[in-house]
Amino acid sequence: MRQTELFSKTQKSAPKDEESKNAQLLIQAGFIHKEMAGVYSFLPLGKRVLDNIMQIIRQEMNAIGGQELLLTGLQNPEIWQKSGRWSDDAVDVWFKTKLKNDAEIGLSWTHEEPLTGLMANHISSYRDLPVYAYQMQTKFRNELRAKSGIMRTREFIMKDLYSFCKNEQEHQEFYEKTKEAYKKIFDRVGLGKVTYVTEASGGSFSKFSHEFQTLCDAGEDIIYIDEQKGTAVNKEIIDDPELGYDKSKLKEAKAAEVGNIFTLGTKYSQVLGLMYQDEQGNKQPVFMGSYGIGPARTMGVIAEVYADEKGLVWPAQVAPFQVHLVQLAGGQEQADALYADLQNAGVEVLYDDRAEAGAGEKLADADLLGIPWRVVASKKTLEQDSAEVKPRNTQEISLVKTKDLHEFFESNTFKTGAGRGN
Amino acid sequence: MRQTELFSKTQKSAPKDEESKNAQLLIQAGFIHKEMAGVYSFLPLGKRVLDNIMQIIRQEMNAIGGQELLLTGLQNPEIWQKSGRWSDDAVDVWFKTKLKNDAEIGLSWTHEEPLTGLMANHISSYRDLPVYAYQMQTKFRNELRAKSGIMRTREFIMKDLYSFCKNEQEHQEFYEKTKEAYKKIFDRVGLGKVTYVTEASGGSFSKFSHEFQTLCDAGEDIIYIDEQKGTAVNKEIIDDPELGYDKSKLKEAKAAEVGNIFTLGTKYSQVLGLMYQDEQGNKQPVFMGSYGIGPARTMGVIAEVYADEKGLVWPAQVAPFQVHLVQLAGGQEQADALYADLQNAGVEVLYDDRAEAGAGEKLADADLLGIPWRVVASKKTLEQDSAEVKPRNTQEISLVKTKDLHEFFESNTFKTGAGRGN
Repeated sequence: MRQTELFSKTQKSAPKDEESKNAQLLIQAGFIHKEMAGVYSFLPLGKRVLDNIMQIIRQEMNAIGGQELLLTGLQNPEIWQKSGRWSDDAVDVWFKTKLKNDAEIGLSWTHEEPLTGLMANHISSYRDLPVYAYQMQTKFRNELRAKSGIMRTREFIMKDLYSFCKNEQEHQEFYEKTKEAYKKIFDRVGLGKVTYVTEASGGSFSKFSHEFQTLCDAGEDIIYIDEQKGTAVNKEIIDDPELGYDKSKLKEAKAAEVGNIFTLGTKYSQVLGLMYQDEQGNKQPVFMGSYGIGPARTMGVIAEVYADEKGLVWPAQVAPFQVHLVQLAGGQEQADALYADLQNAGVEVLYDDRAEAGAGEKLADADLLGIPWRVVASKKTLEQDSAEVKPRNTQEISLVKTKDLHEFFESNTFKTGAGRGN
Repeated sequence: MRQTELFSKTQKSAPKDEESKNAQLLIQAGFIHKEMAGVYSFLPLGKRVLDNIMQIIRQEMNAIGGQELLLTGLQNPEIWQKSGRWSDDAVDVWFKTKLKNDAEIGLSWTHEEPLTGLMANHISSYRDLPVYAYQMQTKFRNELRAKSGIMRTREFIMKDLYSFCKNEQEHQEFYEKTKEAYKKIFDRVGLGKVTYVTEASGGSFSKFSHEFQTLCDAGEDIIYIDEQKGTAVNKEIIDDPELGYDKSKLKEAKAAEVGNIFTLGTKYSQVLGLMYQDEQGNKQPVFMGSYGIGPARTMGVIAEVYADEKGLVWPAQVAPFQVHLVQLAGGQEQADALYADLQNAGVEVLYDDRAEAGAGEKLADADLLGIPWRVVASKKTLEQDSAEVKPRNTQEISLVKTKDLHEFFESNTFKTGAGRGN
């Protein structure tokens, strides 16, 4: 894409009304826009990162048998009353609104109830199980305070998968599979090395659950890391005598929760009538689990973890583009040809073809945007039939012949575009 | 996909609480689920159709220079107060809710205001124009009554594109381009032959606009068709003397609006301060247009237009799968091999491998689901190394050698899967 055609512009400085690094940089670089506290729009560059993260999650959810569906934002109180989660005393993040006939309805903050209700139309026998259903859908949560940029917002897309199994054993097998799928996801988005499977508190059925916690100064959690095992424990349960942890042997760290997996048991299936007939003809409640990842929160954490003093730094698999081609004084024509060449090779390129911007501004913007590879084409480099190649995350500059560039990038970049209609 | 793994089940009969054909069939076939009046979830088969429609729209919007972004559901009153569209007297479809501090906020029913406000951060010079930005985003509209199934709902994804031009001439060129892009979209989703570019009433800036109206008994509009020109006029303006139509020469028909394109002029840019500096250094208001398509409404209209007495009939480009492989008594092993063969050839197959369902049930379900090609593999056909191939929309059955099937379908089906993470 030509930068003269990209409508978003960078700003000279970070917005003053944002405390968090991720929001400051993402707004300054034109990835997101703040609509109000805790509510952000995604501009084209931000949308591309979000799409890439969602596509990775989708692929891994499909790989473990997930079926994608799309539930609704508007929520019928009826089913939430049955589970006891409709009242504002029970759940303090509801947004509620009214139909024309004055009947109160809610906005989706999670989907255990409607999905369990829906499944009762489709599951009746052991032959129908297991079922794994997930969505990428918008959640609304009436948070008292919104800070942390896109890491905690009042509106956000969530990947939520729900599992429906015959019994605890079948559930447990899938639970472990999801754990592995989540590890793959966080590896692929670039957070694998700093993300820990973390034991955390559970719910009414299961005393414990697992969180995926990424080391991050902006995180809201404290975890204790067992460096030998490569796992961690959330501070909230570290002193539970049942677990027998020895804090002194673990390393305390700040972390941000990027995912969680949860055993729900038969809590919802029993109150909402999701029963099946087993092999012996007996009615049994379906055994459930839930598994969440917030793609925008993940994006915020990636921004926090990788950014440096010059701006954003995107891991290649989630980057909005793979190559930032920057044309400096002179050689416009050759730079245009190089752009066409890379595009034809299927490399995702943002081409800074702005005539009115100076070299300093262009290079600063390239650093701020954080695309993995910067390619500078100037009169000087083009006289040597070359361009200057620099990875965003190192200082190593190399001069590469322009004729070799497309081959270089074909093997050194990702094609993330699937799903964007290109 | 194996049908034994697809969680959605068909129902024996249509739901009694739905009046519209599209909702009756889509619920019966397991494509959608009703959460409450006017609010529907999309199950895996329905989600696939919706994805296919959205991907076609996305491709055509990208082709005319559209940049995809994602605005928010939660709406800040401030900007709507400036345009005079916050009060319930001015706009009667608002859903409103409250933050914890009791401040009222709204749910997005359209996005002219927030996008115009956002663009003021990115557009300041004639060099920044034109800009075409679109999204696939959820709209909430507090409709008094919800009927017509997924053709008119209280919550729906909308593709809304907004154009920002220097002047009316630049706008008009893009407006015509969009018209052509819309024609391509409705051609590709299978509605081209029954969809008319229809002159309709405009707004405060432009007296007229254009709707895309599809002939459909379930439609809420009456149009007058000029069969020679292949265009139409909405009943609401047919008697406008300025237009000089002669009703007696036109054919009256019921139609459903599947898209609209609208000249907004400078109405929003002026009140919201979206100005740019022209070549002469003068401040000018940006000239705007808006362009909508409801993918779910389009899906509902496709269902209405194509369905027959046996069930749904999907045009290939939007179908949830291209081939419905139905295994009947005997030959399970060969059918499994055939399924693997088609999958390897990249053909999108739903494989009815259910052991407990009888032939009658399987064939009735295949008709109900409406996948373009039905392939029956039974002991009888497999003894001849063949399978029975039948298009959903004709009665012509042909016997094709199983070894030739993958080649046949490779050239006779679409790969719609992009974007689904496969």
